[in-house]
Amino acid sequence: MKLTILGCHSATPTAKAHPTAQVLEMKGHLFLIDCGEGTQMQLRKYRVKFSRIRHIFISHLHGDHFFGLPGLISTFLLLGREAELHIYGPKGIKQAILLLLKLGKAYTNYPLYFHELEETTPQLIFEDDKVSVETIPLDHRVYTNGFLFKEKPDDRKLDVEKARKLNIDLSYYNKIKQGFDVENREGKLISNKEITFDPPPSKSYAYCSDTAYYPQIVPQIEGATVLYHESTFLEEHHHLCDKTKHSTAKEAGVIARKAKVETLILGHYSGRYGDLELFRKEAQEVFENVELAEDGRVFEF
Amino acid sequence: MKLTILGCHSATPTAKAHPTAQVLEMKGHLFLIDCGEGTQMQLRKYRVKFSRIRHIFISHLHGDHFFGLPGLISTFLLLGREAELHIYGPKGIKQAILLLLKLGKAYTNYPLYFHELEETTPQLIFEDDKVSVETIPLDHRVYTNGFLFKEKPDDRKLDVEKARKLNIDLSYYNKIKQGFDVENREGKLISNKEITFDPPPSKSYAYCSDTAYYPQIVPQIEGATVLYHESTFLEEHHHLCDKTKHSTAKEAGVIARKAKVETLILGHYSGRYGDLELFRKEAQEVFENVELAEDGRVFEF
Repeated sequence: MKLTILGCHSATPTAKAHPTAQVLEMKGHLFLIDCGEGTQMQLRKYRVKFSRIRHIFISHLHGDHFFGLPGLISTFLLLGREAELHIYGPKGIKQAILLLLKLGKAYTNYPLYFHELEETTPQLIFEDDKVSVETIPLDHRVYTNGFLFKEKPDDRKLDVEKARKLNIDLSYYNKIKQGFDVENREGKLISNKEITFDPPPSKSYAYCSDTAYYPQIVPQIEGATVLYHESTFLEEHHHLCDKTKHSTAKEAGVIARKAKVETLILGHYSGRYGDLELFRKEAQEVFENVELAEDGRVFEF
Repeated sequence: MKLTILGCHSATPTAKAHPTAQVLEMKGHLFLIDCGEGTQMQLRKYRVKFSRIRHIFISHLHGDHFFGLPGLISTFLLLGREAELHIYGPKGIKQAILLLLKLGKAYTNYPLYFHELEETTPQLIFEDDKVSVETIPLDHRVYTNGFLFKEKPDDRKLDVEKARKLNIDLSYYNKIKQGFDVENREGKLISNKEITFDPPPSKSYAYCSDTAYYPQIVPQIEGATVLYHESTFLEEHHHLCDKTKHSTAKEAGVIARKAKVETLILGHYSGRYGDLELFRKEAQEVFENVELAEDGRVFEF
């Protein structure tokens, strides 16, 4: 599981502080999560093979999370894309994108599907045999979802040596990996556990931005490998959270602790702070394993 | 007259090749011309005092010329702008921008005026006592205007020494600068020409992008101080111009020569060329004074 931060700053971007966008590589998928202005330039800068992106997840319709989407869609068109592209985002996103394309007489030459979201309880919005993606309804000024990306368990690992020793026919090996008990050549039933190892644990990534402190999400994200949680402010500006519906670094830490995640990544920093380490320190008052998102930073888990 | 190129590349942007946007400083105005994705970051990078921008001119509704506009408008809102902002662009621009703002529940706290264009003959779209701005209808795949920015002549310069010698009362000095003949203290009529110098010549800037070779514009832009003319291609790819409705560097040179402008600036380069000097060389086959636009380059005239 590999996470590339393309931008992790809030609201008004500068040449060195890009608005929210990130790429999650999971089981062969390249998922784009949010798409602030300039995302297509950031994708090129950090050499992401962005033609491989087939699914784009937009948390909410504030500009710093989706104003890069029309440009990216147009660029795919100009580069001759043929593969399907799926956009998941709040109701209204389809009308906006199609209007912009229509004004430029830029109709896509590839299949473009919109999956508009309007539910306020978690929904399964994408699934194949390797991963699933659910919405995490959040508490922000406009309708907003986080997203929970989960790997499905791998097949069990076969203990080949033991299987040979127990005289099991090769034709059963696939069934064994799928978890079945099988008979050996002598007709004796061999328990699956005896001839397999557990697969590596499945990983999960919970993306929660933008949101006020919202402990209702805890049961859904419990035990996640990685939680990205916004921390627009530090506690000294906690009074700004109510009006703006954002969180502090400490609140992000509390969510991480309650949900017993393995790693917390902070991001969506307000531009008023010079030193990002202050965010880490504050969150570490309540949760130890804290990382800081930075434009261009790559995390591997 | 000062021109700052924020971006001058066509179609698909990269981190080092920004889409079209430029700032023209003329007689105290800061005019933004086109607003491709990332313009607000470029404005910050090149330290343009962009709160001073009151007028934005959009040539056409292809993404590489206006997908940075919603973000810039939102940023003005977040920065607490109070001054009026005027947007001049093709019909449809208002609906698109207002829809995007509405989706993010981001209504502007400053007066935002749209001046939608749909005429196919030159129109005077802005005028005050110092400058005027006209549309230059162009020939592109969608409805497109260039813009002609013209300084109005300054007041005549008073020859103070001579006015004193001729015994002219101080109270007449303003009238003299405005071009009037006046009487001296002895009641003798003094011709204006005798006591004034010509003001510096008025400058003009013709912005023509995007367009096919379109000599119909020549009479309107004749004698311009500076012509910015797109040159998406070199002559070796001339066959691409018909379909895309773009020009070659040589065609830009021909327009400059026919219109007898002082300086030609080339831009809107296709990404297929490595060496921009090839554009200059080609245009110089027909017109001598050629400059190359580059992201971040500042021209003073």
